Amino acid sequence: MQSCAKSWGILFAKSVNPHAPCRHIHGKSRIFGKQHNIIQTLNNACVTVRGLRTSAVYAASRQIDRILPRHDDFAERHIGPGERDKREMLDVLGLESIAQLIEDTVPESIRIQRSMKMDDPLCENEVLERLQKIASMNKVWRSYIGMGYYNCSVPPVIQRNLLENSGWVTQYTPYQPEVAQGRLESLLNYQTMICDITGMAVANASLLDEATAAAEAMQLCHSYIGVKTMLKLPHEMDFSGKDVSGVLFQYPDTDGRVEDLTALVDRAHKGGALACCATDLLALCVLRPPGEFGVDIALGSSQRFGVPLCYGGPHAAFFSVKENLVRMMPGRMVGVTRDAAGKEVYRLALQTREQHIRRDKATSNICTAQALLANMAAMFGVYHGPQGLKHIAERTHNAALILAEGLKRAGHRLHSEMFFDTLKVGCSVAAKDILARAVQREINLRVYGEGVLGVSLDETVKERDLDDLLWVFGCESSAELIAEKMGERVKGIMGSPFKRTSKYLTHAVFNSYHSETNIVRYMKRLENKDISLVHSMIPLPITWNEFANLHPFCPLDQAEGYQQLFRQLEKDLCEVTGYDKISFQPNSGAQGEYAGLAAIKAYLNSKGDAHRTVCLIPKSAHGTNPASAQMAGMKVQVVEVDKDGNIDMANLKALVDKHKANLAAMMITYPSTFGVFEESIDDVCNLIHQNGGQVYLDGANMNAQMMGAKGLVHATEVAILNANYMAKRLESHYKILFKGFCAHEFILDVRPFKKTANIEAVDVAKRLQDYGTLMIEPTESEDKAEMDRFCDALMGIRQEIADIEEGRMDARVNPLKMAPHSLASITSSTWDRPYSREYAAFPLPFVRPETKFWPSISRIDDIYGDQHLVCTCPPMDVYESPYEEKRASS
Amino acid sequence: MQSCAKSWGILFAKSVNPHAPCRHIHGKSRIFGKQHNIIQTLNNACVTVRGLRTSAVYAASRQIDRILPRHDDFAERHIGPGERDKREMLDVLGLESIAQLIEDTVPESIRIQRSMKMDDPLCENEVLERLQKIASMNKVWRSYIGMGYYNCSVPPVIQRNLLENSGWVTQYTPYQPEVAQGRLESLLNYQTMICDITGMAVANASLLDEATAAAEAMQLCHSYIGVKTMLKLPHEMDFSGKDVSGVLFQYPDTDGRVEDLTALVDRAHKGGALACCATDLLALCVLRPPGEFGVDIALGSSQRFGVPLCYGGPHAAFFSVKENLVRMMPGRMVGVTRDAAGKEVYRLALQTREQHIRRDKATSNICTAQALLANMAAMFGVYHGPQGLKHIAERTHNAALILAEGLKRAGHRLHSEMFFDTLKVGCSVAAKDILARAVQREINLRVYGEGVLGVSLDETVKERDLDDLLWVFGCESSAELIAEKMGERVKGIMGSPFKRTSKYLTHAVFNSYHSETNIVRYMKRLENKDISLVHSMIPLPITWNEFANLHPFCPLDQAEGYQQLFRQLEKDLCEVTGYDKISFQPNSGAQGEYAGLAAIKAYLNSKGDAHRTVCLIPKSAHGTNPASAQMAGMKVQVVEVDKDGNIDMANLKALVDKHKANLAAMMITYPSTFGVFEESIDDVCNLIHQNGGQVYLDGANMNAQMMGAKGLVHATEVAILNANYMAKRLESHYKILFKGFCAHEFILDVRPFKKTANIEAVDVAKRLQDYGTLMIEPTESEDKAEMDRFCDALMGIRQEIADIEEGRMDARVNPLKMAPHSLASITSSTWDRPYSREYAAFPLPFVRPETKFWPSISRIDDIYGDQHLVCTCPPMDVYESPYEEKRASS
Repeated sequence: MQSCAKSWGILFAKSVNPHAPCRHIHGKSRIFGKQHNIIQTLNNACVTVRGLRTSAVYAASRQIDRILPRHDDFAERHIGPGERDKREMLDVLGLESIAQLIEDTVPESIRIQRSMKMDDPLCENEVLERLQKIASMNKVWRSYIGMGYYNCSVPPVIQRNLLENSGWVTQYTPYQPEVAQGRLESLLNYQTMICDITGMAVANASLLDEATAAAEAMQLCHSYIGVKTMLKLPHEMDFSGKDVSGVLFQYPDTDGRVEDLTALVDRAHKGGALACCATDLLALCVLRPPGEFGVDIALGSSQRFGVPLCYGGPHAAFFSVKENLVRMMPGRMVGVTRDAAGKEVYRLALQTREQHIRRDKATSNICTAQALLANMAAMFGVYHGPQGLKHIAERTHNAALILAEGLKRAGHRLHSEMFFDTLKVGCSVAAKDILARAVQREINLRVYGEGVLGVSLDETVKERDLDDLLWVFGCESSAELIAEKMGERVKGIMGSPFKRTSKYLTHAVFNSYHSETNIVRYMKRLENKDISLVHSMIPLPITWNEFANLHPFCPLDQAEGYQQLFRQLEKDLCEVTGYDKISFQPNSGAQGEYAGLAAIKAYLNSKGDAHRTVCLIPKSAHGTNPASAQMAGMKVQVVEVDKDGNIDMANLKALVDKHKANLAAMMITYPSTFGVFEESIDDVCNLIHQNGGQVYLDGANMNAQMMGAKGLVHATEVAILNANYMAKRLESHYKILFKGFCAHEFILDVRPFKKTANIEAVDVAKRLQDYGTLMIEPTESEDKAEMDRFCDALMGIRQEIADIEEGRMDARVNPLKMAPHSLASITSSTWDRPYSREYAAFPLPFVRPETKFWPSISRIDDIYGDQHLVCTCPPMDVYESPYEEKRASS
Repeated sequence: MQSCAKSWGILFAKSVNPHAPCRHIHGKSRIFGKQHNIIQTLNNACVTVRGLRTSAVYAASRQIDRILPRHDDFAERHIGPGERDKREMLDVLGLESIAQLIEDTVPESIRIQRSMKMDDPLCENEVLERLQKIASMNKVWRSYIGMGYYNCSVPPVIQRNLLENSGWVTQYTPYQPEVAQGRLESLLNYQTMICDITGMAVANASLLDEATAAAEAMQLCHSYIGVKTMLKLPHEMDFSGKDVSGVLFQYPDTDGRVEDLTALVDRAHKGGALACCATDLLALCVLRPPGEFGVDIALGSSQRFGVPLCYGGPHAAFFSVKENLVRMMPGRMVGVTRDAAGKEVYRLALQTREQHIRRDKATSNICTAQALLANMAAMFGVYHGPQGLKHIAERTHNAALILAEGLKRAGHRLHSEMFFDTLKVGCSVAAKDILARAVQREINLRVYGEGVLGVSLDETVKERDLDDLLWVFGCESSAELIAEKMGERVKGIMGSPFKRTSKYLTHAVFNSYHSETNIVRYMKRLENKDISLVHSMIPLPITWNEFANLHPFCPLDQAEGYQQLFRQLEKDLCEVTGYDKISFQPNSGAQGEYAGLAAIKAYLNSKGDAHRTVCLIPKSAHGTNPASAQMAGMKVQVVEVDKDGNIDMANLKALVDKHKANLAAMMITYPSTFGVFEESIDDVCNLIHQNGGQVYLDGANMNAQMMGAKGLVHATEVAILNANYMAKRLESHYKILFKGFCAHEFILDVRPFKKTANIEAVDVAKRLQDYGTLMIEPTESEDKAEMDRFCDALMGIRQEIADIEEGRMDARVNPLKMAPHSLASITSSTWDRPYSREYAAFPLPFVRPETKFWPSISRIDDIYGDQHLVCTCPPMDVYESPYEEKRASS
């Protein structure tokens, strides 16, 4: 059972929806059409409209536009530098104008020549007004469709202080754990919650969605690329051939059935296959968890733990495994380690598993998690605690029991007698009559066809809802009367062997913050440990009722608002990119890569070019590219770049020539991660096309490319100006990896300092924390003052390196090697460093005690943590009063 | 002109609305009926519903309530201590049950005996759902009514990060300036903005509303209570008798007219009267400000600076005076001073003026400001800056010019040719036809009657709106065509002597944060300097369109949602208090006192008892009581209390006997500020009533009295339990001022330490900041752990006092006298105290560097600040890079 690298074949339990491998993939497969990734879509829609606003230089042709000009110019608001800033920066660059800079930066050949067809610009309040109108076109009916998406009560205290709080929404990826302990703690809570509830040993910090989680589980079973899938009922499954690598089943299944799958798991294990279980967190609060009947991988969606439906996403998927599989687990995982002061702290564990380290050896391209939504789900668990969750689960189950009893009395037939919240109902009367009554009450049911309907209940169900459902199904009794007659007789799961007996969420963190006051203070305490952009551009509309509470499988005519958003965004994005069609399906950049390459592969196969499998990827490409290519079944061939980051054309030509018979695609990140607009882009495309391949362009850095309407143009110009200004200020201090003018970013080369001062990139990054700043991309939203502070920090650090190089500072104990300096170390009586507290913590005048962002811990020890892997919450310190009196016994 | 203590008489310019002294008071007078104080009303409505929820102990009588219990119990959520906490606290108190505690605390005689009639309890999400339905009953038409209330574009970045951010909403009153520098800086910005725009020397940090500001201005002119008012046109005013103390006029006036009032001001001054000007901040961005034509007091509403209409309030009123009046100015004022380390810092200035210090000598009862809304307005100024505000003002004025031109072409007559944004129109056709067309387009106009209509424009007006207004008034042209023909000819104010030529908002703070990124970071930087409850109970619905954008004078049928809220809240509050009618008018507790006493006075007068003017007020009463009594024209007589805080009945009887012929009222704060439920309350009421007086009950501490439905009862019980638990823990360490069991609060007596250790209350309060906590009221929302930490802090401080008393610690340089210890002092290399950094900053294990709330400055020097009064922004430090290169000149 250690190795499961079988050739081909993975089984699927046939109990899942017949149209797709599992209900989740089915769910997603419908979403493929249009509906996915709603929050991003809303965001993009806002950003698009935002980007379209004209700049202040817009010359009005009508008199009324001159005397009644646009009220507020949000393109300018979003742009950091004012006119004077821009002039000063151009002076430093020795340039007359921004036009001149663009002339020198963006190759003539790739600049767009036409003007763009887009709607008139709007100011921010107008955008909100329009979105309100659009929202009102959605109809929020009560949904009992289920299929992986459930209504839930989002605790307002969490919605407001986490989902709608820029301090949580804009936090950086926690690559710098010293300034991200809050978010890491919350994600560790999430992992602990998942482990506890599923009964598994380890969980990751979430995946993009349940479908991805299911695919990753299969990938893990099979260990390398290319999985053959078969759909079977449990008793039909045959592992005897030892050619099966894994089995994926649902518990409870899509029809709501709860059945004993222990025997199946045992058979799979005997046949050398792994057992993967897609499951439901709320059900497991009262149901025996998969970890207790031998399952190797448990996965699912954590949406119903307090995350709005939002017409299908994003939601955090969970993924948990047995101890022995931990090093093969995809995705990010938070682990416990210690810092330089020996304190117990958190950071991303086992990062060496990941694509951004292993690059072309990676088999998973997962580099993002749904951290925000995982944090929401974790806080839902923290807020309700084990008693609260059990209460919700029992309540939901009881509602289903009452409904089931009523349906049976009305003559309907249930497909299963053992269920948690979902009933599959064989109707005793015409289903269309039932559906007609459902429409009258604005209720959506799941429709199987042929007289079969589905009802999934959830925590929001009230007595009135049950009465409505009973009426819809033609039951003449009421929930109250049914409950009265049921008495204590019907206990469902709670009176069955499926009843959960093991404890969960016993850790103090899930038993301390159940009051509003306490949960708010806890969230605030975590928030304040983390550096964030505290930026306002957050997805306002997503918590509006009409966007938040729409089920992804509701009838299209209830989602007209969403449809209009999609159409409008598609039109604008096609205009900006020059492409013909847009898919909103990919849930992340890496998913986009995979989808793009899969499309290319399918296209080549359809032309009879199935042999074309070679994918060329330059070294300058975005980090996830190689993994995506491998997942799409291609072979990666690396293309060299020159010292300035440009593609090495000679090497490319040689490689194309060598592989031309089997050339499938080339992936280009444009502009590259070196921040360069390559002039040769046209030549490269032609070369690939001439040799039968397709070009995939990675837009990870696309914000610097979007040469569209005036507002977009101006934002892009300022981003380019900012980057070049910073590069100019730093060029006499550091070696910079590009030539001439850069696009939106550049790379400082710190490798020489390893020899001269034993200083590495990590030391510089940690020392930047002491300066109260992080490595930033100088986008258009930063103003000159902020960039100057950042440049000054880097110059200060260069000076410190020089002090080491020239012997003025100890080579071992110096502020770079000791960085970051936590508040605890600076405020301690004990200070034995060869430099002062001020030198350590306030190296420049703008770094002040009261405004500085302090790292909450000392430098993280990654190796220790990976050697002593702990990925669930460590015990909490409990404060004992030194003044505690003897208690009077009552 | 120094003294203006004239006998009787204050004039009003007759240009204001004929139905009331001035448009603002008129505004308020209509509001008196029902509509005022909307945000509080919404809050109260939520709280009421919230409070009504049953507790977990609610015994269900129906089977369905047992198997399908309430989903989430928010009465419990709002209550800090869990069941175990409560049991432990009762043990410490030596009590069997909470019932026993209540038995011992609340006098039998005043406990309610009946159960309350209230709607079924709701959970928080249900409240929101219901509020959404209620909101949808309001109709948001475009309003051009004006009269002191204007539509405005609330910058979403400010709405979200300030108005909807619990970090700003729940900040404490800045009595402890060391942990409130952020809020104080923002209020200082507000004052600077008001001074700059009005052209006055000093401004306060806002008053409750414009009507209060106007009344306070008159009070200030007259210097003592009782003002006679006369309404006259400017040219009718006669100051020659030297019996006029002040004149109040509007500029621009309620009809929109801008006229030169210099002569009037001069005449008033010559007659020994002060000149008060109610004015408009936006107009003053292009109009000569009152400070430039001799006005002594300028006041108005800052609502249109980015604060939603909210059907009339709350909004921050501004109040600014000439230099010589500063010490007579009512309300809170922020000033600059220095801290113990010599740093320039902020705090409330001239507090000795205020009622909470002067008590029974005070003539103003103002103890609250609209700080949150003043901060919103200040940030509006910071975000737009002088150019932005001028742009908005010009744009609004231009829109009015276009409309005026169109109206004249359609044959209508304007009442004034010089206006800013408001037109009074004599209609050339029947007004009812115009109004009918307005209804078609869902537009509200001001109706004067007799063929006269009013239109007030604002920053939100767009070309389309002007076209609609032109159509409504029967003008056949469009805004575009009118603008085209107007050309550069019509310049309005900008081409007149009224044009403002002086600069404003030149300070760097108004010229640095115009991008989204910068303003968010600035707001966050200020927020993080301030301790706050970071509590979630914030007024969610107020930013909903249907609540936010309703003009207070819109037709009643457009405000059905609001009306329903009022009715429901009135019903519930009557039920809880046992009174017959409720007025929602008072905008603060102090206003409520004044209104109550004014009502009593009017009642007595109507009975022919005008001679009854004596008001008895116990020493234990709330601090604003005496000032309110004086403002209502009563004479204050103080009643003694015994050492436990109870009313001294013998003293009371003697006083009643002495004053019985002239007894008007007695004011009782119940429970008292000593936290005691007085058993004698019934006797007191009878005594007063028997002697012809009325009893006014101050509910400032009423949350501990509200003996209502189960949820309320439980919250109250826990608040009482918490207070008694803390008192019990502290009683062996401090002298506590009450006997037996207390109500909701108690007082620690630290006066003895003055003699034994030279320690005063202020030292204890400042030292509590080092423990990371503030003096708290142990309401029901604090849990046991938090109360234990607070008790431990107080015990730690008692230990420190003992160290001084017993000579182990220096009497002069000790952590109490040096408190609070700022981050700057603790992190400095220089440390010359006779105690350690840890002793100073981390006196107990729960006070940790990374989670502690740090005072951002050292102890404030109040006296220095009052002696060197500065109430506008001091210059900012500008950071200069030490690495700045020589600039290439272009």
